[in-house]
Amino acid sequence: MTTDSPDQAPSFSHFRALMETLPDADETAAAAAATREAGLTKPPGALGRLEEISGWLASWQRAWPPRTEQCVVAVFAGNHGVVARKVAPYPAEVTAQMVANFRAGGAAINQFCEVAGAGLKVFELALEIPTRDITQGPAMEERDCAATMAFGRDAIAEGADILCLGEMGIGNTTIAAAIAHGLYGGKPEDWVGPGTGSTGELLVNKIAAVRDAVALHRDVLGDPFEVLRCLGGREFAAIAGAILAARYEKVPVILDGYGATAAAAILHAANPRALDHCLAGHVSAEPAHARLLERLGLEPVLDLGLRLGEGTGAALALGVVKSAVAAHRGMATFADAGVSDKA
Amino acid sequence: MTTDSPDQAPSFSHFRALMETLPDADETAAAAAATREAGLTKPPGALGRLEEISGWLASWQRAWPPRTEQCVVAVFAGNHGVVARKVAPYPAEVTAQMVANFRAGGAAINQFCEVAGAGLKVFELALEIPTRDITQGPAMEERDCAATMAFGRDAIAEGADILCLGEMGIGNTTIAAAIAHGLYGGKPEDWVGPGTGSTGELLVNKIAAVRDAVALHRDVLGDPFEVLRCLGGREFAAIAGAILAARYEKVPVILDGYGATAAAAILHAANPRALDHCLAGHVSAEPAHARLLERLGLEPVLDLGLRLGEGTGAALALGVVKSAVAAHRGMATFADAGVSDKA
Repeated sequence: MTTDSPDQAPSFSHFRALMETLPDADETAAAAAATREAGLTKPPGALGRLEEISGWLASWQRAWPPRTEQCVVAVFAGNHGVVARKVAPYPAEVTAQMVANFRAGGAAINQFCEVAGAGLKVFELALEIPTRDITQGPAMEERDCAATMAFGRDAIAEGADILCLGEMGIGNTTIAAAIAHGLYGGKPEDWVGPGTGSTGELLVNKIAAVRDAVALHRDVLGDPFEVLRCLGGREFAAIAGAILAARYEKVPVILDGYGATAAAAILHAANPRALDHCLAGHVSAEPAHARLLERLGLEPVLDLGLRLGEGTGAALALGVVKSAVAAHRGMATFADAGVSDKA
Repeated sequence: MTTDSPDQAPSFSHFRALMETLPDADETAAAAAATREAGLTKPPGALGRLEEISGWLASWQRAWPPRTEQCVVAVFAGNHGVVARKVAPYPAEVTAQMVANFRAGGAAINQFCEVAGAGLKVFELALEIPTRDITQGPAMEERDCAATMAFGRDAIAEGADILCLGEMGIGNTTIAAAIAHGLYGGKPEDWVGPGTGSTGELLVNKIAAVRDAVALHRDVLGDPFEVLRCLGGREFAAIAGAILAARYEKVPVILDGYGATAAAAILHAANPRALDHCLAGHVSAEPAHARLLERLGLEPVLDLGLRLGEGTGAALALGVVKSAVAAHRGMATFADAGVSDKA
């Protein structure tokens, strides 16, 4: 994948074209994984979801055996004009403060990455220039949005066997809800939840902001890229771009929570095959996340009541994925181990 | 905890007494965990189940902060006379062959232990002398059963911060079903599933064996220790003994699948507080496991369609537990990190 040349303004045309030529899964790698799995010293299917995961990983890495040596957790951070609508209990400056916390190693995701053996990359997306309040106009110009999508590829610039995608941004569950409501309709309440802890008046404001934003941009809802531009935020654009780049670069993706999944939904709306190389790491406590995963046909690996973002659910799921691959690669076969197969 | 002195035959009396004096959780450690959790750089409760796990661990280690440095996975292996009833698709010699596979590092649990950073201990329980066919008489004499319970303590003989308990034994989902049916009644079909892959005639035989065994031992069903002796197997006795020893030695326990949970149910039937220091690592694909966990009031950490045993589900859950503790211990507080708390 290449980005637009520097002498022209970044635009969606490049990404629209990429959506039409998505690489398929590698059936040869998938078949090799299935053959190996069938010979391992366990009853067929006894590792359940883990057996599927090994095969899925091989087919999207386009190589067998699957690898988990280089695991990257990328966290994209953005700020949002919609926080002026008093939708969140924390002030907007917490986004930059949490980025500093990530860099100092003090956040939950830092600890999870250490346990999972993953590298953490944190990307600040012009935090000092929040996107426009989506109730007042489009969040971004096309060139800002497209350039941020292109920047998403930096998550895998040094290569990766697996990419975990998460976000940080005060106000961004309002953005996620606006994207989901914009793409799927229903009522604003179907897609709005407490996020970091919006209750009472904050929750009322959040629902109103989502309703107003989607009403304002009603004419573009049929175009997923326009939904991203008008109702999104930079971390959503970067995550969508990272997912798309990963598809081309043979990097399977683990999605984190509601924010990352809403970004993924943009691609899915443009092409229903767009997320076949993505695993839902978990279903969060944010009520709309389960509804969104269902729309996308994604079955979460974990269900632990998390509602933090930062890539935490994806990083936890990485432990399961690593175990799946370790079993797939490291177990003995019935023949090797001299274990009797079924009578 | 001490075992019976060598000059008398092992008996249940020692364990019956221990069930009456179970240590309680340490409320001071739990309170210290709650205080720390409340100050960490995340919205309150945003780590969901992981926050509960950190507090639970501290309260049963009886010390704060909780520790996960020394994690032990213990797998107890036993053989069962009931396999003569043709209840399982694999021959009985597979138990010893799989033990050899564990020792050679070729089984799933070996790979999971490596990923989770846990030590693996495998205990063979007189595999050459299967317990008696439970449809013909009691599985064990009291002294065999009690000695095996005492032996279970060896799982933590070198100390442990956490103990994961699993089993291996051809025919042992029949034993698990017999224990559950013996303790909870209902129909044999409520508690019998395919195990390693019993279908058709094997499944019919399995249901009949459970029905016949429970009918034969109907007079002892009111005494959980007698249920263990008559309907159990050595790995069940050892796991029950290990759980009880762990309670006294301040070692929280992660239970694996249907077998380990059926062993735990014996203790729960003797004292409903007996499993408060135990976490259900997962719910397996064996249909009765979910039903049994519900009876015990245990909420599984993972649901991945596993049905292998060997401690695999517990070892996978250990990754989540380690992440919980890493976050609890390693995260910055709002004050330390200079992050603004709620407005």
